[in-house]
Amino acid sequence: MPLLGRLVVDYKNYMINDFVSKDDLPFFTTYGRFITAEMYLKAGFKNTWATFDLFVRDLPEGRNFLVFAGLEHVVQYLQDFKFTSSQVKYMKDYMKLSPDTIKYLRLLKFSGSIHAMPEGSIFFANEPVIRITAPIVQCVLFEQYLANTVMLQTMLASKVARLVNVAKGVPISLTVIRTHGVEAAIKGMRAGYLVGCSKMASPILAMRMKMPPSGVITYHYFIQSFDKEEQAFEIYAKNYPGKGWMLVDTYDMDAGIKKVINISRRLGSNSFKGICIDSGDLIKHAKQARLMLDKAGLQHVEIMLMSNLEEYKIDKIVKQKTPVNWFGVATEVMTSADHPKLEVVYKLSEIIKGNNVIPKMKLSRSKATLPGKKQVYRLERKGIYQEDIIGLEKDKVKGKKLLHQFMNKGRLIEQLPSLDESAKYYQSQLIKFSPKIRLIERNYHYPVTISKSLRVLAHKTERLIRNSSK
Amino acid sequence: MPLLGRLVVDYKNYMINDFVSKDDLPFFTTYGRFITAEMYLKAGFKNTWATFDLFVRDLPEGRNFLVFAGLEHVVQYLQDFKFTSSQVKYMKDYMKLSPDTIKYLRLLKFSGSIHAMPEGSIFFANEPVIRITAPIVQCVLFEQYLANTVMLQTMLASKVARLVNVAKGVPISLTVIRTHGVEAAIKGMRAGYLVGCSKMASPILAMRMKMPPSGVITYHYFIQSFDKEEQAFEIYAKNYPGKGWMLVDTYDMDAGIKKVINISRRLGSNSFKGICIDSGDLIKHAKQARLMLDKAGLQHVEIMLMSNLEEYKIDKIVKQKTPVNWFGVATEVMTSADHPKLEVVYKLSEIIKGNNVIPKMKLSRSKATLPGKKQVYRLERKGIYQEDIIGLEKDKVKGKKLLHQFMNKGRLIEQLPSLDESAKYYQSQLIKFSPKIRLIERNYHYPVTISKSLRVLAHKTERLIRNSSK
Repeated sequence: MPLLGRLVVDYKNYMINDFVSKDDLPFFTTYGRFITAEMYLKAGFKNTWATFDLFVRDLPEGRNFLVFAGLEHVVQYLQDFKFTSSQVKYMKDYMKLSPDTIKYLRLLKFSGSIHAMPEGSIFFANEPVIRITAPIVQCVLFEQYLANTVMLQTMLASKVARLVNVAKGVPISLTVIRTHGVEAAIKGMRAGYLVGCSKMASPILAMRMKMPPSGVITYHYFIQSFDKEEQAFEIYAKNYPGKGWMLVDTYDMDAGIKKVINISRRLGSNSFKGICIDSGDLIKHAKQARLMLDKAGLQHVEIMLMSNLEEYKIDKIVKQKTPVNWFGVATEVMTSADHPKLEVVYKLSEIIKGNNVIPKMKLSRSKATLPGKKQVYRLERKGIYQEDIIGLEKDKVKGKKLLHQFMNKGRLIEQLPSLDESAKYYQSQLIKFSPKIRLIERNYHYPVTISKSLRVLAHKTERLIRNSSK
Repeated sequence: MPLLGRLVVDYKNYMINDFVSKDDLPFFTTYGRFITAEMYLKAGFKNTWATFDLFVRDLPEGRNFLVFAGLEHVVQYLQDFKFTSSQVKYMKDYMKLSPDTIKYLRLLKFSGSIHAMPEGSIFFANEPVIRITAPIVQCVLFEQYLANTVMLQTMLASKVARLVNVAKGVPISLTVIRTHGVEAAIKGMRAGYLVGCSKMASPILAMRMKMPPSGVITYHYFIQSFDKEEQAFEIYAKNYPGKGWMLVDTYDMDAGIKKVINISRRLGSNSFKGICIDSGDLIKHAKQARLMLDKAGLQHVEIMLMSNLEEYKIDKIVKQKTPVNWFGVATEVMTSADHPKLEVVYKLSEIIKGNNVIPKMKLSRSKATLPGKKQVYRLERKGIYQEDIIGLEKDKVKGKKLLHQFMNKGRLIEQLPSLDESAKYYQSQLIKFSPKIRLIERNYHYPVTISKSLRVLAHKTERLIRNSSK
């Protein structure tokens, strides 16, 4: 292998930059979509508009609902969308796009409208969460980023929501060491915040949110750095009194707790915030730890549990009335390891040529889509949501309309809620569903139906397509 | 919910920036690690150095080997590591770190050494892929980024390698629409390139690599935009002749292929690069399509198969001698959906106080670690690798040393290979293992043992720790 020997070199010569700036995002698509854009232009679709729906085809096994997240990034992306001059040069030199296509793309800005559910909305399979109406060439270029950013954040918000629902008020701290990258970590913590995990262990997001970070545990290597475990604990008791969580299972849990107790006797009962248990039978250990601490008069010293926790383990811990004040969760949750993807799709629902609106749909049995400009109506009775109806925008269905118009002619026309407002909105919505929606051990199917007018349009559209495609 | 009505607003006021620049990375850690740094300084560890190993604890079920990737980003991160003035301000105002800690951190630069396997190396559980020796306060701060970036890229390189191994030379195109973010997409495509997927459908990485993008298929919505399927195909035949892959299953596969044949008769046999099948029984459909195309004299028109492909489906397709020229893979592979995580850990192996080197290890039965400065030796016989030995650096084991020193005193001292060189290195290594390593349907356990001197050191260290921690 060509290792060139020992010399001082500058990696920047051959480094492939992996940082993503807003300038990069218009190229987060495929070459095939650029050629599609060119083919549309060649076919005379320059002034043709279209409506596309972004939705999730199926809820993953075991998920009773999803929490919509990522709209803020979609809006940012659409507002900023513009090719840089070096991207335009790449289109010429490497993509070999035609001069007409380049001329069209180099000035392209988003000029369409966006209807969307507000972030924090609870939604179900096949319900559009974003509806975009724009020149069709634009719609093609936006697909990949919209699907990507909505998938990641919605998947993680929906996953963390399950943990919050079973933790019954015990706070959850999110660790992002093994997410799929730093961007995924930031978006994952943001998604967690949306559904109620408001403490930030990682300063990379806490600083952006202008909030203090939190959650200090001792790490194994800190404890191992000393000859004796109690030396490590003492450093925290003396220099960070009352705020640290001592990891007590590096060597022997009972012995670890006894050291915490002894130091508290010697240096004061407010030496530690809590203890942390990271291995073994968490329920048994927590009960034992609580007894030992209480007996020593340390009722205020809290217990944090971690060790590959997910919603099923947390549910079991809570149901067994385990004394626990914090849960620490990590990779299992922040990669949504049981379902690390959502089938987020972006489907054509109509073509608009001047005043002529042509509904469109896919026919294939397992992947059929719904035509037309749609709206989702949520019906409420006695303060509880009963049913969603996917209908046409022009339908006269009673019920709350879930899709709001946020952008028109490429401009934001309705202020996006802040993340705190979205988090409150999520909570306000969650309690209006049957409590069964919050169960994790069995499925609850919230009813979603299709309005009569939409069914009629779908039948009509299907007939038209079958006739013309013969 | 507080939607403030219709007005033109600027989202930037409340936007949480989700872009990651190199300046952000030093904050990609936890508050707890900053406090650990402070506690180390309080405890007099300012000039204490340590060695940490980065390794994967277990191979995921079904994986016979892993491919190391991400070193380039680790080196970049370490070379660039420096807190910005606003981060320093945050440390004061929000983290409330002591003036001494701030003074130490504000000037902190990486000053240690890095031994690592070159990217593209094949490795196994418990083998250190990166060994870092540096002031212990630095080591603490680097943990999260190192584990994160190595996990993501190694996981994806190792996943894609499995597909390449069973595809038997049929090229694979990677689609990144539903990765966990844009960074994960870029790193995933880079990882794919490393193990042999050298075509780039996405310009976001192709442009950075100064290579043309490739792979143009028709999308369903393009076909749906016309009254008749053949109109869509004709646009490609006329304006992008010989380069496009026609998706033939939007309505009816046989009818779709017949339209491709008719247009080829009318406009020339070089109208299309190929056809693309995205649903149904791919093996049956591909065989049928090949027959139809060949009969029409279109032997050169290729067949691409997609539809949630992963290594098991590809293996079956190839073993059934299916006529296929390209595979398109997406979410299933690029999220490593069957194993979306690796247990990448970063463990203390020694503490260095002046001339005093104190080996360290974790004792717990399931998570024990190995002490000391280690090296991995790979033994070869008749051109085939036989066994790896994890030993001490000073061991006199015959065999290739897998860990190279890339950095010393914070500087790069050995040029990193280019991505192309790393890709060649991977191929050159793969063929030196038993072909059984490439099987996906059953496990092959390549032997990895521990050298005698390392076992002796581990026993000695364990005794010492057990005695002193009593």
